[in-house]
Amino acid sequence: MQTLLLNADDVDENARMDRVIDAVRGAFTAYERGNAKMPAKSYIDLPEYNGDFRSMPAYLDVRTEDTAEDAGWDAAGIKWVNVHTDNPADHDLPTVMGTMIYSDPETAFPLAVLDGTTLTMKRTGAAAAVATDELAVPDATSLGIVGAGVQSYTQLEAIAEVRDIEEVVVSDLDEERVADFVAAFEDRFDVRAGSISEAGHCDVLSTVTPVEEPIVGLDDVGDHTHINAMGADAEGKHELADDLLLDATIVIDDREQCTHSGEINVPYAAGTLTDEDIYGEIGEIVVGNRPGRTGAGFGSGAGGADDAGVDGVTVFDSTGLAIQDVATARVVYEQADDNDNGYPFDLLGLGE
Amino acid sequence: MQTLLLNADDVDENARMDRVIDAVRGAFTAYERGNAKMPAKSYIDLPEYNGDFRSMPAYLDVRTEDTAEDAGWDAAGIKWVNVHTDNPADHDLPTVMGTMIYSDPETAFPLAVLDGTTLTMKRTGAAAAVATDELAVPDATSLGIVGAGVQSYTQLEAIAEVRDIEEVVVSDLDEERVADFVAAFEDRFDVRAGSISEAGHCDVLSTVTPVEEPIVGLDDVGDHTHINAMGADAEGKHELADDLLLDATIVIDDREQCTHSGEINVPYAAGTLTDEDIYGEIGEIVVGNRPGRTGAGFGSGAGGADDAGVDGVTVFDSTGLAIQDVATARVVYEQADDNDNGYPFDLLGLGE
Repeated sequence: MQTLLLNADDVDENARMDRVIDAVRGAFTAYERGNAKMPAKSYIDLPEYNGDFRSMPAYLDVRTEDTAEDAGWDAAGIKWVNVHTDNPADHDLPTVMGTMIYSDPETAFPLAVLDGTTLTMKRTGAAAAVATDELAVPDATSLGIVGAGVQSYTQLEAIAEVRDIEEVVVSDLDEERVADFVAAFEDRFDVRAGSISEAGHCDVLSTVTPVEEPIVGLDDVGDHTHINAMGADAEGKHELADDLLLDATIVIDDREQCTHSGEINVPYAAGTLTDEDIYGEIGEIVVGNRPGRTGAGFGSGAGGADDAGVDGVTVFDSTGLAIQDVATARVVYEQADDNDNGYPFDLLGLGE
Repeated sequence: MQTLLLNADDVDENARMDRVIDAVRGAFTAYERGNAKMPAKSYIDLPEYNGDFRSMPAYLDVRTEDTAEDAGWDAAGIKWVNVHTDNPADHDLPTVMGTMIYSDPETAFPLAVLDGTTLTMKRTGAAAAVATDELAVPDATSLGIVGAGVQSYTQLEAIAEVRDIEEVVVSDLDEERVADFVAAFEDRFDVRAGSISEAGHCDVLSTVTPVEEPIVGLDDVGDHTHINAMGADAEGKHELADDLLLDATIVIDDREQCTHSGEINVPYAAGTLTDEDIYGEIGEIVVGNRPGRTGAGFGSGAGGADDAGVDGVTVFDSTGLAIQDVATARVVYEQADDNDNGYPFDLLGLGE
């Protein structure tokens, strides 16, 4: 019995974005329907190293009763990931590194060990795409990006799978990052540097920064912009001004994670933003329990634009769920296995 | 930056038992002194597969203020492990399989990915040895083993490091298992098959079975037998009869884990055994906050033998702590790295 080792290149090559988006949509569906098991993220805080470790185990089952059994799948695994802010300056290492163990739920055999860093970028992009598909105007053609770091690339790659993106405006204080981003995509898109406000007036905006003071205000976005707020991942971080959040229809990925460490955590803790300002979870929209932007009654029952329709601002608060990692790992493993990619290794010593 | 892959053979060869015992003793010390961070084990129960997954993250720091910094160490990691009872019969796979990620706490870089199955056996044996060193009579020469499965081998290997074991009695209903065990050790010890009572009348007894009805009674043990109760790892499991437990001086590894899923969980849930019957945690004894068997006042403040001294029965309830895994992984990684064992792999794609 061999465990397949999949390094960063293997993950990149085998995470076909259309399939990852489908898998992440499936994960949100399973979670909403009660077919996922996802213990709370557990943290080990290491203040002396200005860092932390997070363990993210999950199981999900997207087999449904009205589907032939081989059409669905279930999957299990765990991602062990960190945030060590001093890594780039002090150790020439990324702030965030991840390692993923992907397991067969029936036997628990570890089918694969994967680079969890690349996996995280892919599944995070895919989550933004699922939300964009439900919440952006149908004819969106422009995408703004605020923050041109490592997570920004998959925002464009994924969102371009669900909308016909032609124009891209990227905003970052670091000109080299902007130039790298433009160079990476100028063959496929009309991509240019711009201000936060120019990025925010696109049909879709993804914010991908680690800031603790909001950098996007109400005046910085258009009247129907859908915002993917991807950056906040810890208490005290937020990218969007309170008045923008309160004006928008807010969709979250998970109530516990978002109120604790997502985009809304700061105003939520302050009481400025309450449960009544949250329209719903992305899973509810994906399965049809709540309408998306073009559905009748969209936004009702929450603060902000009660009848947003195609004209309101929407925000997706994405903290990242362990089920996204497991679903994405499955896509990568299955495709790598089909393509004979990766390195089989008898980790457990079980022989042939 | 390469991650070192260490398969079952690598773990076996590099887990020098004397060092593993020292490391596990260090782990218990750090835990007792508040220098460990160990979130609760989290479970994913999969009743449809008659199995579960457990995630066990931990950090520990055995650097002390009165020690030169390079003499101490800290370590972090996570073990992802399962119990799937039908594996042997239905899938020709072990019931328990583990995968361990061992990380540098300063940067979170994954230094190694290890077979967690062999690692578990080693650290479990080491925990029994640490407890035996504190709780068995000093001149113990005989060891009984009840249950000759995969975990039994490291009981003998480890306990022989802390006592001059000459005679071994092994008891199991499965004669083939007994024969295998005898064959493995007959060159080094006077080892023979015997009844549970014969095993229990040795100076030290390790019980290593998954039973749900006790198989060792009060009459089955000698008047100074130290018992390592290793088998219980889930609600409903116990190996020792209530009257034996209530007569003994009970030492646990962790209050939460033991009362939930350790040897004492069944009588504790029934109210037959209470907090007052627990003498203390192994860490308290290791650091000297409570006396071991030969210390003045041993056993006081708990039910059972209040002045056990060398004549009472002692029980160590071992559930297995994540800090034991991390400490053992460090021993294996350091030694493998020194010996150029294992397989370096650029999992995260960080290049040289």
